[in-house]
Amino acid sequence: MNDRFYLSLAVSEAWKYQGLTYPNPAVGCVISDKNGAILGVAAHKQAGLPHAELEAVKEALSKLNPLLVFPLEPNELYAFIVKNHNNLLKNSTFYVTLEPCSHQGLTPPCANLIVTIGAKSVVIGVADNTNKAKGGAQILKKAGIEVRTGVLSEECNELLEPFLLWQSKSFSFFKLALRLDGTYDNGIITPHEARVFMHRIRSVCDLIVIGGETLRADNPLLDARLINGKAPDVLICTQKAVKKEANVFSVKNRETIIQSGLDFPEKYKNIMVEGGSNFLRAMSDRVDRFLIFHSCDFSLKGSKKIETDLKLKLLHQSHVDNCSFGWYRKEHSNISI
Amino acid sequence: MNDRFYLSLAVSEAWKYQGLTYPNPAVGCVISDKNGAILGVAAHKQAGLPHAELEAVKEALSKLNPLLVFPLEPNELYAFIVKNHNNLLKNSTFYVTLEPCSHQGLTPPCANLIVTIGAKSVVIGVADNTNKAKGGAQILKKAGIEVRTGVLSEECNELLEPFLLWQSKSFSFFKLALRLDGTYDNGIITPHEARVFMHRIRSVCDLIVIGGETLRADNPLLDARLINGKAPDVLICTQKAVKKEANVFSVKNRETIIQSGLDFPEKYKNIMVEGGSNFLRAMSDRVDRFLIFHSCDFSLKGSKKIETDLKLKLLHQSHVDNCSFGWYRKEHSNISI
Repeated sequence: MNDRFYLSLAVSEAWKYQGLTYPNPAVGCVISDKNGAILGVAAHKQAGLPHAELEAVKEALSKLNPLLVFPLEPNELYAFIVKNHNNLLKNSTFYVTLEPCSHQGLTPPCANLIVTIGAKSVVIGVADNTNKAKGGAQILKKAGIEVRTGVLSEECNELLEPFLLWQSKSFSFFKLALRLDGTYDNGIITPHEARVFMHRIRSVCDLIVIGGETLRADNPLLDARLINGKAPDVLICTQKAVKKEANVFSVKNRETIIQSGLDFPEKYKNIMVEGGSNFLRAMSDRVDRFLIFHSCDFSLKGSKKIETDLKLKLLHQSHVDNCSFGWYRKEHSNISI
Repeated sequence: MNDRFYLSLAVSEAWKYQGLTYPNPAVGCVISDKNGAILGVAAHKQAGLPHAELEAVKEALSKLNPLLVFPLEPNELYAFIVKNHNNLLKNSTFYVTLEPCSHQGLTPPCANLIVTIGAKSVVIGVADNTNKAKGGAQILKKAGIEVRTGVLSEECNELLEPFLLWQSKSFSFFKLALRLDGTYDNGIITPHEARVFMHRIRSVCDLIVIGGETLRADNPLLDARLINGKAPDVLICTQKAVKKEANVFSVKNRETIIQSGLDFPEKYKNIMVEGGSNFLRAMSDRVDRFLIFHSCDFSLKGSKKIETDLKLKLLHQSHVDNCSFGWYRKEHSNISI
């Protein structure tokens, strides 16, 4: 198969973790051996866990030598692989959605790992232009590795954009959880596994934004209790007084801001907005993306449906348990960076 | 990667053509070379076109020898490949969602093709128990090819079930086209490419079923004009009189049946049901599956939303252009065969 085929597997794998990797980008990596057989399909899962390339190398080596016992800590894993790769991945090809990093972050540079491994070629979806990480392709080329670029660059750019927005301003998305018929009232909508996934996303947001209507109707906690995760700060946009007994105040180690305006405070970078029809309409032009979950249920007659005239563009769809979800942007919206 | 990985690619490819292959099953096939590199990912696309195995062999050979010019007609293609494969696929592995056929249908048996090609092993998702086609695995084994079964059998069974229902009684599905908010009134809902896809599905249905309400409200043609395809017969379930001027009667070479009951006439095997809330509720227990399209638009306030209390299970989701769609079954419904 061609470069597009392999890289598309990396793109799909990376999207599974979109929303979970902050402040790092969602990145996917596929490794094929010298004959083109796929040895690893992996993604960066969250900050503090290995980069996609390191995950993929680990997966590939564990296939080729099932006796290897890998350390969990990323730095130890990196060092272990440098010591134990045993040229098993010599002449392999890496397919990465983003140019491998050149910098010492939580782990040493991925570009150096690929050189050490002895890869023959690297296919890169999109260049890394961030100051601290750029230059990976140069490292690869200097080591004599063939670098191919411009493959699926539009798809890889779309995947990367939340990260780019974190760099330039902030990234915000409106999260909706609907039934198949567009309703969202009358209790819990999505299955447990989908709510766990949402709490994982919440736990890496630094701010959740809701309107006064949601506060009064649902009195939500807005925490990440299903994964024992960190609760983000909360911004309540309301022109009415907020009761001190509201559940949102009962969560420890969080700041709660109440304001009448809709602007996000500048210090926040990764912002989830939640709410119903009115808040969605108020926020539609202010958020960068929409994350919409659809359970597989319909509701009984008379339930409240979401009401807006938004037209969206589907960027990626997937599912958690029996619940589908999609990342969307406004149709015809310009790339904002 | 393991058998599950390769076969899952075949399953995904096959689902793209679910609803289009009648009276043949939706089948997918992946071919890897002796080193595990993927050479072909293909599916059976419609009756009269090559089986999945033949499509995959063609794709694989065209990669290995770009100079080959393949005939389009399936029998000629089969004969051409037998003559020109040149052992390029020697020791390959086939991953097929359904046991390769053993019979001379529109094309010669796929099992024989795999033997001729010189495959080393064949991984089969689910056995073919139909009288005319079964026995493919025996042919392979007799030729010394390793046959592995039981991989992703649940997924492959689910994929195959419409075909099994055609054998035992009929297969019927309720098609819904909704906006993201569950509404379905006020004009065209899905983008052009999605409607073309629906017309392709219609063109292989032998019956479309609607209620009197849809007839009176929409006065639909219910044909396959977007692809110049054959219009299926129509069953109108209504207790009121039907006007002779209804558009449905203007389509040539079709039978239109009007009855007050909801039972499908026995002579029909592949049945699409269309309608709104009332007809969906009436038909929910009578159809085998649900095919639900979701455009990426919301509607203006006041539009009519679908109303039922169905609980479904997502079987597969995909998209056409900017429109997602999913195949569903009723949650907890027993497999009906």
